[in-house]
Amino acid sequence: MKILPDSLDRITEQFSRFPGIGKKTAQRMAFQLLEWNQEDVQRLGEVIIQSREKLKYCTVCNLITETDPCPVCLDTRRDESILCIVEDSKDVVAIEETSRFKGKYHVLGGVLSPLEGVGPDQLNIQNLLARLADVKEIIIAMNPSIEGETTSLYLARILQDRQVKVTRLARGIPSGGDLEYIDGVTLGRALDERHELI
Amino acid sequence: MKILPDSLDRITEQFSRFPGIGKKTAQRMAFQLLEWNQEDVQRLGEVIIQSREKLKYCTVCNLITETDPCPVCLDTRRDESILCIVEDSKDVVAIEETSRFKGKYHVLGGVLSPLEGVGPDQLNIQNLLARLADVKEIIIAMNPSIEGETTSLYLARILQDRQVKVTRLARGIPSGGDLEYIDGVTLGRALDERHELI
Repeated sequence: MKILPDSLDRITEQFSRFPGIGKKTAQRMAFQLLEWNQEDVQRLGEVIIQSREKLKYCTVCNLITETDPCPVCLDTRRDESILCIVEDSKDVVAIEETSRFKGKYHVLGGVLSPLEGVGPDQLNIQNLLARLADVKEIIIAMNPSIEGETTSLYLARILQDRQVKVTRLARGIPSGGDLEYIDGVTLGRALDERHELI
Repeated sequence: MKILPDSLDRITEQFSRFPGIGKKTAQRMAFQLLEWNQEDVQRLGEVIIQSREKLKYCTVCNLITETDPCPVCLDTRRDESILCIVEDSKDVVAIEETSRFKGKYHVLGGVLSPLEGVGPDQLNIQNLLARLADVKEIIIAMNPSIEGETTSLYLARILQDRQVKVTRLARGIPSGGDLEYIDGVTLGRALDERHELI
């Protein structure tokens, strides 16, 4: 005998389409909806629909935005000559929070991953090449993963003939880390790239 | 400078209202929406709103349902004289999957938890007392947690004067378990409640 009503299955199915949301979590979310009052649920549904209608990717830098070009691209106080390449919009937020970077961004929208069928054509690379006219330095700020590394090397290769300085984020031990618990690759790299202190 | 658009924050805020969905997961879900096409997102929003309108709790047993009374309560092939008390609708699904129980259910909608402000009045207990007329046996099937245990004892106490047999689920080692890895409380209980084999 089927116990749970179809409506519940339908919501569960919808929620479980999100990455990282398994069947059980999706079902718990669906049950939770019944604890909310009708107006709150109505609001959730509407926010989802309306926000999706408003959100798009900036045609210049590919950042998630409501206005195109995005506020970062339109900001004239930013230095056009230095461009930071990141995987996705969340990385822009992380870098902005440091307050150390005043240039512009270019969001690739992913990393090269042959296993998942992501090649250069699936990334926002053609647009990057079109933006290089006034750029003097490109900072490659990929995540320190194998795919991130591969993507960095790929970018470095296609940029090498251009009149542009290409840099990447420094590797080393993270602040607040404990040497004892830091993995060997990171520690090895920190040793290789050690600086003179005095 | 604010990088992420307000619409994205609004969805993130809505998603993070679900239990078990933290800020990061909620944001990842919000980003995911932009990967879906407009129609899919529209459908998600509509399913949420429509399902919430359809779903309610059965006024007899408190099971989540689209029709009131629920199909289980209306099912005349079920034995009215035996009632299984569970915490929530998901437990009914779990018990149904065993195919061992042909009686009716009563969903409490939670467990006693003074720390979280859940007392007997917050649970579906008054309705239970009103259903006892033709009931011969009540199976208390709470989860094996401290709150579940407390609730079982509370129920046993308020049911003791009624002309009804009160039972509870057996405790012991789970099927497929490995004695070596079973916790001491469970194993101790399995020893205390050992059966004669021949």
